[in-house]
Amino acid sequence: VRQLPAETATLPPAEAREWFRAGLVSSTDGWAAGWTQANLLAIPRDWAYDLLLYAQRNPGACPVLDVTEPGATTTVLAPAADLRTDLPAYRLFRDGELVAELTDVSAVWREDLVTFLIGCSLSFEAALAAAGVPLRHRQQGRQVPLYRTAVQSRPAGRLAGPVVASMRWIPAERVATAVEVTSAHRATHGPPMHIGSPAALGIADLARPDDGDPVQPAEHDVPVFWACGVTPLAAVRAARAPLVIAQKVGHMFLTDLPAATA
Amino acid sequence: VRQLPAETATLPPAEAREWFRAGLVSSTDGWAAGWTQANLLAIPRDWAYDLLLYAQRNPGACPVLDVTEPGATTTVLAPAADLRTDLPAYRLFRDGELVAELTDVSAVWREDLVTFLIGCSLSFEAALAAAGVPLRHRQQGRQVPLYRTAVQSRPAGRLAGPVVASMRWIPAERVATAVEVTSAHRATHGPPMHIGSPAALGIADLARPDDGDPVQPAEHDVPVFWACGVTPLAAVRAARAPLVIAQKVGHMFLTDLPAATA
Repeated sequence: VRQLPAETATLPPAEAREWFRAGLVSSTDGWAAGWTQANLLAIPRDWAYDLLLYAQRNPGACPVLDVTEPGATTTVLAPAADLRTDLPAYRLFRDGELVAELTDVSAVWREDLVTFLIGCSLSFEAALAAAGVPLRHRQQGRQVPLYRTAVQSRPAGRLAGPVVASMRWIPAERVATAVEVTSAHRATHGPPMHIGSPAALGIADLARPDDGDPVQPAEHDVPVFWACGVTPLAAVRAARAPLVIAQKVGHMFLTDLPAATA
Repeated sequence: VRQLPAETATLPPAEAREWFRAGLVSSTDGWAAGWTQANLLAIPRDWAYDLLLYAQRNPGACPVLDVTEPGATTTVLAPAADLRTDLPAYRLFRDGELVAELTDVSAVWREDLVTFLIGCSLSFEAALAAAGVPLRHRQQGRQVPLYRTAVQSRPAGRLAGPVVASMRWIPAERVATAVEVTSAHRATHGPPMHIGSPAALGIADLARPDDGDPVQPAEHDVPVFWACGVTPLAAVRAARAPLVIAQKVGHMFLTDLPAATA
């Protein structure tokens, strides 16, 4: 039996995808440091215009890295990858409802599915760490917390809804560094959407995220929010798209794109 | 009779649009310095997905600033503007062929037209000048030259074709400055696509542009190329879209968006 390396941060994306293809289920947080991680969102062709327009109107939440042809199972972001098998875990939604969690979606794939690959903020965490910004969630062995905010996205066709944000506690003296580093990662959300006031985003209690885990701040930590690629998933679910395939939260598609190509 | 100010660079966009609505025909090069200028491309709804996907796949040439609802005559980029009247000159294409040049397209507007507004490199010229980069075409009273390059865009649906580039002669010692300044203007093409070798772009003779005017270099000037918003117009023409409305080259839509919002 092949052994998973202890240090998944140094795995090249292609090797990481092999593990996932073989059935390993793991959050990709901290994996393949320096490579771009992406949200996957596959929807029927007759929803693709609405979603592409929604992305254009909400670029912070939806930095589109690639959109496939209908039925395609590959992407220019990692030509050797199979989009149906190479993510660690998928979620299948029908009419907006979660109906299954799968590690392989080959059996439910359809010829009319258009796949959107959307940048994920996990991509810039290695750069934050390299710039001396501590990652509290990793120190605590937790997933980045996600919050549904009171900020409304700009609607497009049938799609609308609140912006979902990821939050990281950042030491006050490192907040400017975090802005600078992430500004150079536009393909994976870019700079924060909001810094310092959860109440202004309509978030009553940071200890109760809508997804991911609560994370404890250190003294003088400030909450910093980035628009999150879960936003378009929430919108297509709210619109009750008949079929949607997405990755499980935090279980991203590892691309062959260097993280800093913005 | 109202007098057009001698210095059109200081006109706010809304006042400039009033002049164009009243029938003034002029290139907008040098107008409303510091504001974003946009290409207009209105096409039937059943071409909108192809064009939006083409833009996503060719972001350097097609930085989309807004896409309207079908039939809409306004945009969030300048809510008081009428897209049918407020540009200095329009061109009407049927099946890819130029059939008319108009200053008002109200009579040919259709309920199924979706309008794309795409950033234009004229927007960053004021910032270049402020950074000490001379603008040779303006010194010589000419329009920026455009060249059809040998670089192929990434196709989408029915759309494909060569990347069209604008070229500016830049003093060798100012080329890096030009890159830095324009990198901060991503919504209007961002950094150059190519610097210094016209032959590598398949351009045999810079004295013979495909549109705009030839411009003379000073000694030690280097040709610097930016992907141009004429690229998607060339693609929809080549695909023989049944109806396309665009601005006349260089006669752009002046938005209320500051130029540096990238």
